[in-house]
Amino acid sequence: MIYTSPAIEAAIEALSSLPTIGRKSAQRMALHLLRQPPEHVEKLASALTTMRAKVQYCATCFNFSEEDICPICASPKRNHRVICVVEEPSDVFAIERSGDYSGVYHVLHGLMNPLEGVSAGDLKVKELIRRLDGEMDEIILALSPTIDGEVTAQYIARLLKPIGIRVTRIARGVPVGSELEFVDDATIARALQSRVTA
Amino acid sequence: MIYTSPAIEAAIEALSSLPTIGRKSAQRMALHLLRQPPEHVEKLASALTTMRAKVQYCATCFNFSEEDICPICASPKRNHRVICVVEEPSDVFAIERSGDYSGVYHVLHGLMNPLEGVSAGDLKVKELIRRLDGEMDEIILALSPTIDGEVTAQYIARLLKPIGIRVTRIARGVPVGSELEFVDDATIARALQSRVTA
Repeated sequence: MIYTSPAIEAAIEALSSLPTIGRKSAQRMALHLLRQPPEHVEKLASALTTMRAKVQYCATCFNFSEEDICPICASPKRNHRVICVVEEPSDVFAIERSGDYSGVYHVLHGLMNPLEGVSAGDLKVKELIRRLDGEMDEIILALSPTIDGEVTAQYIARLLKPIGIRVTRIARGVPVGSELEFVDDATIARALQSRVTA
Repeated sequence: MIYTSPAIEAAIEALSSLPTIGRKSAQRMALHLLRQPPEHVEKLASALTTMRAKVQYCATCFNFSEEDICPICASPKRNHRVICVVEEPSDVFAIERSGDYSGVYHVLHGLMNPLEGVSAGDLKVKELIRRLDGEMDEIILALSPTIDGEVTAQYIARLLKPIGIRVTRIARGVPVGSELEFVDDATIARALQSRVTA
């Protein structure tokens, strides 16, 4: 049996719940924090709880936001006639990082997966439809090039066809089978530029 | 300019201060925490602040401890006639993990480095000498096989020689130039077994 203090053990266990953090990394983090001034640890802890308490979904695009309407949806500098549809808030981060997009977003919060029983009703699809009006120029489907991404993109494209809005998909510059979140900025920029009609 | 909410940005920045966590990993962690129930985030935050508030140094061995005397130093099951001298609390974790050691520890909190002006006075060396009495069987120097580790081990070995206690060093089963903390358990166990007189 390995000895650690219950308080250190509790911190290691809590840190291990973070994505990609195994027990050894969590242990390193805990020991690192024990060397910091208490104020530093307090600041980290309160940054996390403050974030969780303040941040909600934007009522328009469902990205994370501190306000009812997120700064992108509220910005007069963004092109509100173009909506880029993504799976997760992390994909908004990725596309913003590419610096190649000036429209707005719509976060589905998942992808359809018939085998696992995830249907369009579980995603923010009807919320997307509700946003559309005669003013809309284009819907860009920027979903991961996986099977679930394909299914969801085809479903939304078919749904939007009768409405008569131009629906495009980002080009397969992105490696098939990868997660959009991890694609490099240049590739994302290129895939946006060479998007094709769905 | 990439948009993130100030609260998310503050959390990402705080998480980036953790060892081995870059901006992208910190971002992944923040977005992960935003998907958790607020209670989960509160629990993580309070585990960190509680740990920092409760944990101090053991008055005997200077390992991290919630009590004045740590459970290892307080345990009648450990052999108090053998002290294993290590650089950092993380090395105690590593040696305990190997399951091959039943003595007690002494944490130096650093290694001597003449070039950077770190001398024996900056480490818990005199606290080690103070612990020694006629009852002592052996001091095991389990310091990283780096130049600083060598310098420190030789200094302590020379210091202890007149006292007449057996001083050993863990064998060079551990790859030269590596950090002890990252060595695998089996190698640490073997290095302890084949320790040699200093």
